[in-house]
Amino acid sequence: MMHEDSPTACLIIVGNEILSGRTQDGNLAWLAQRLGEIGIRMREARIVPDEADAIAEAVNETRRRYSYVFTTGGIGPTHDDITAASVAKALGLPFGRHPEAERRLRAYYPPEKLNEARLKMAETPEGAELIDNPVSVAPGFRVENVHVLPGVPKIMQAMVEGLLPRLRGGPPVLSRTVVVFCPEGEIAQPLAAIQARHPQVEIGSYPHMRFERFGTSLVFRGTDAAALDAAVAELLAVAQERGVATEALA
Amino acid sequence: MMHEDSPTACLIIVGNEILSGRTQDGNLAWLAQRLGEIGIRMREARIVPDEADAIAEAVNETRRRYSYVFTTGGIGPTHDDITAASVAKALGLPFGRHPEAERRLRAYYPPEKLNEARLKMAETPEGAELIDNPVSVAPGFRVENVHVLPGVPKIMQAMVEGLLPRLRGGPPVLSRTVVVFCPEGEIAQPLAAIQARHPQVEIGSYPHMRFERFGTSLVFRGTDAAALDAAVAELLAVAQERGVATEALA
Repeated sequence: MMHEDSPTACLIIVGNEILSGRTQDGNLAWLAQRLGEIGIRMREARIVPDEADAIAEAVNETRRRYSYVFTTGGIGPTHDDITAASVAKALGLPFGRHPEAERRLRAYYPPEKLNEARLKMAETPEGAELIDNPVSVAPGFRVENVHVLPGVPKIMQAMVEGLLPRLRGGPPVLSRTVVVFCPEGEIAQPLAAIQARHPQVEIGSYPHMRFERFGTSLVFRGTDAAALDAAVAELLAVAQERGVATEALA
Repeated sequence: MMHEDSPTACLIIVGNEILSGRTQDGNLAWLAQRLGEIGIRMREARIVPDEADAIAEAVNETRRRYSYVFTTGGIGPTHDDITAASVAKALGLPFGRHPEAERRLRAYYPPEKLNEARLKMAETPEGAELIDNPVSVAPGFRVENVHVLPGVPKIMQAMVEGLLPRLRGGPPVLSRTVVVFCPEGEIAQPLAAIQARHPQVEIGSYPHMRFERFGTSLVFRGTDAAALDAAVAELLAVAQERGVATEALA
């Protein structure tokens, strides 16, 4: 609904450990916020198992739909690390050792430690551009609009920081949050009217109860600061008229 | 790869707040584990925005692929709660008030509190079967193999507990975890051989570093306890041969 011309993103999270519930994903929230700051909107995320067909299908179903596709996970040295090969499969590209990636691994590991499994981390689809890894050397890569990143949050974040200047951003997504101290069902009707008057603002309503007190966080998001302020002002007026306490957050 | 005949599930998480990074999903891990206990494997999850087309498309792309589809989020009283209407749209079903759901809301809210916004929570696709909400009354529903649940974890969990006896399970998914105290790149080759010898066991490798010590958690999952034990025994033998310390977890 808001800023239709902003670049968009989709994250494909690869990993049986996320789907089994063993591990909680720690990358979506960080990446969505960081991309939002430069005006790229996260529009979808998918979590898929460590299976070549599932990964390739997710890549192919999303790469034409969004400006950028990111994958996290599945690029280590073990048998279940098949993301890079699956991306090559999705794009119909040959897959093999990237000379510069191999050079970096050889410079980092002592010869007796650089086994075949670790050299697997130098494999990319043909024509891939490396994404530097300042933490543990083994690089990610970009091919077309698909960006292949590791699953370990600290390493993923460091790599994305280096990658961001290469991405085309848009107007930054701004956000205002107001808490109204009533259940959301009591403010829903005037809120729908405010939303209808401000289609360029995305208004989200998130109920909560803390210390036995009902509250609703209303989040106003969009790229037009004046429109956000106008929508927030209307909400505050409604709350005041009804005698409902409010609190504006950052 | 393992137990091909087990029932499968996909979770569709509806919510701009998850995609913007404002909120961390708290439902996938719990639901995946709970379903895994009764032998239903979570095979995919998607996170989509509060938009009718995006929700309907995700439902239609997944409902024929998996035994069960679950949605969480977007079934409250506010303008951004459009999951129920979007599921009706996906299935091409008329959408309107479910008499029993309306009866429950009328029994729960005092008349002056039951406004049009709250009555929206009684709307379902035609022919939907209600899923009881023992916490806050407003029900979820099932239509065909799609199960529509709320996003608040405490309420979602209570509703799923009531729903589970109605689902067809399979052989429970068993799991063994062994930590080997070396980087995963040093155990990757024998591990791949063990995986190749035990295709019915799914072996995941998850590296970590704690207190400056490299470790790798190896997770063996499958429905055949004897096959799990055999694969674990082979790993322990490899570790012992190489003088690598191990620790078996529950």
